[in-house]
Amino acid sequence: MIAFLAPALLAITATAAPVGPTDIVQQAPAAAWVDIPAGDLLVMSLENGRRVVIQLAPDAAPVHVANIRRLAEAAWWDGTSVNRVQDNYVTQWGDATEKKPLPDAVVAAPPAEYERPANGVAFTPLNGRDAYAQQAGWSNGWPAAIEKGRVSLVHCYGMVGVGRGLAPDTGSGAELYAVNGHAPRHLDRNIALVGRVIKGMDALSSLPRGTEALGFYKTAEERMPITSIRLASSMPANQRPAFQVMRTDGAVFARYVDARANRRDAFFIRPAGAVDICNATVPVRPRP
Amino acid sequence: MIAFLAPALLAITATAAPVGPTDIVQQAPAAAWVDIPAGDLLVMSLENGRRVVIQLAPDAAPVHVANIRRLAEAAWWDGTSVNRVQDNYVTQWGDATEKKPLPDAVVAAPPAEYERPANGVAFTPLNGRDAYAQQAGWSNGWPAAIEKGRVSLVHCYGMVGVGRGLAPDTGSGAELYAVNGHAPRHLDRNIALVGRVIKGMDALSSLPRGTEALGFYKTAEERMPITSIRLASSMPANQRPAFQVMRTDGAVFARYVDARANRRDAFFIRPAGAVDICNATVPVRPRP
Repeated sequence: MIAFLAPALLAITATAAPVGPTDIVQQAPAAAWVDIPAGDLLVMSLENGRRVVIQLAPDAAPVHVANIRRLAEAAWWDGTSVNRVQDNYVTQWGDATEKKPLPDAVVAAPPAEYERPANGVAFTPLNGRDAYAQQAGWSNGWPAAIEKGRVSLVHCYGMVGVGRGLAPDTGSGAELYAVNGHAPRHLDRNIALVGRVIKGMDALSSLPRGTEALGFYKTAEERMPITSIRLASSMPANQRPAFQVMRTDGAVFARYVDARANRRDAFFIRPAGAVDICNATVPVRPRP
Repeated sequence: MIAFLAPALLAITATAAPVGPTDIVQQAPAAAWVDIPAGDLLVMSLENGRRVVIQLAPDAAPVHVANIRRLAEAAWWDGTSVNRVQDNYVTQWGDATEKKPLPDAVVAAPPAEYERPANGVAFTPLNGRDAYAQQAGWSNGWPAAIEKGRVSLVHCYGMVGVGRGLAPDTGSGAELYAVNGHAPRHLDRNIALVGRVIKGMDALSSLPRGTEALGFYKTAEERMPITSIRLASSMPANQRPAFQVMRTDGAVFARYVDARANRRDAFFIRPAGAVDICNATVPVRPRP
């Protein structure tokens, strides 16, 4: 059919060709990206050779993130393990005995850094309904929500949180989990979210599920040993991963979200016309 | 403290004790449950010894489900494999060559059974917002949504759909997938949903992710062979699984959904006050 088009029309057709979210990310200019500081990157090495990279969220949970940095600097997680994999919920790691002493500098009972006043916090609203909060959106690159004037990060796939006991302030940051299924948004504002997996999430999501209550492994042999967890900033320069995250307050990201909500790829018959906060994952790429 | 309460008050306190969703499911009377017909259960056996049970949804996609039953009766999937595992998206299985002839009775190009008029279809609305549709809810035990007077099943975790090409009617049912991550609701009304995994989902979600585009495996060796797929109704009675699903139009289910939205378990500090359609998974249990 295209052979019948006049050259001018052909050019218009080419310009108007469907643009999917992937195209927008691939074509995004350098200004659409922000470097992630090496001090915000946590690198977990598993015994099976897999590496998982986590971006920390110091603005959302400063005391917890300070703890996590201290634990990494003390090599505290080396020799611990992944102890719990509950299907469609979380993959959790730390000291299986729950008795390993914390380094002195770690605050054993941090405050409940679950939400903070929205006033003064950067926030780009999502144009659409959210099932849980008055307003979903993004805050400096993070999926977030505002409810009653307070902003919190939200439990999307791959988000990393701090395991805790029943009291709201018992999680030091030594026990961490990553969401491995449908966003468990009921945990929002009940747990400190401290980051997200930006590379290697499949190394955590494809582990065998534990057969004990809550997906804990029954035997020590089932646990995946953690060789090390380090801050990228403390690694030799030639081993250090470097990533960029897309600015969530810019025009390119707005186009990306719109393309996620209105899929124009040939496969789609009926674009949804909407997208939920956890289906418009903030793009991340290795630093070019 | 409880020692100071008068006996009458103690009884009230006991009655008012926090009741979580699990308690409600465990205490649900027989009348809250419906038997799943054996002809609606698909049993997949993997070479690693794992078994996956899928409940079919004949009301939503009658032609596709009829195809699937014929494929199972013809033992068509025996010797095929899981070919694609894309992280936070889908696990897909079928004939890797895409050239295996279909049994004669299978309709090669079924109609696009993606949605149907809501008028006359049983529907219990979810009391809350949905990011994608005008109204989310449940239809005869299935997560569903209504948009512009038409009802469709929705892509929650574990839901099973029919792989297809670019044309809307190219999926016979021979290529199936199960959602293994956050609900990809943008696929709603774009693909025929034909069922859900009700047992053994972790056997599909914990497989290694494929490294080719879309999570396809690169080599034949990576594929998990499928030993057999059968309808429970065609299996010997002593091997046949039997399950019940909770009625979604009853008072017990309404209490369950409320308890999912307002977690009263001791762990929760701030109940969400809401739940999305894919976080209130319809309870299923083995038939007692």
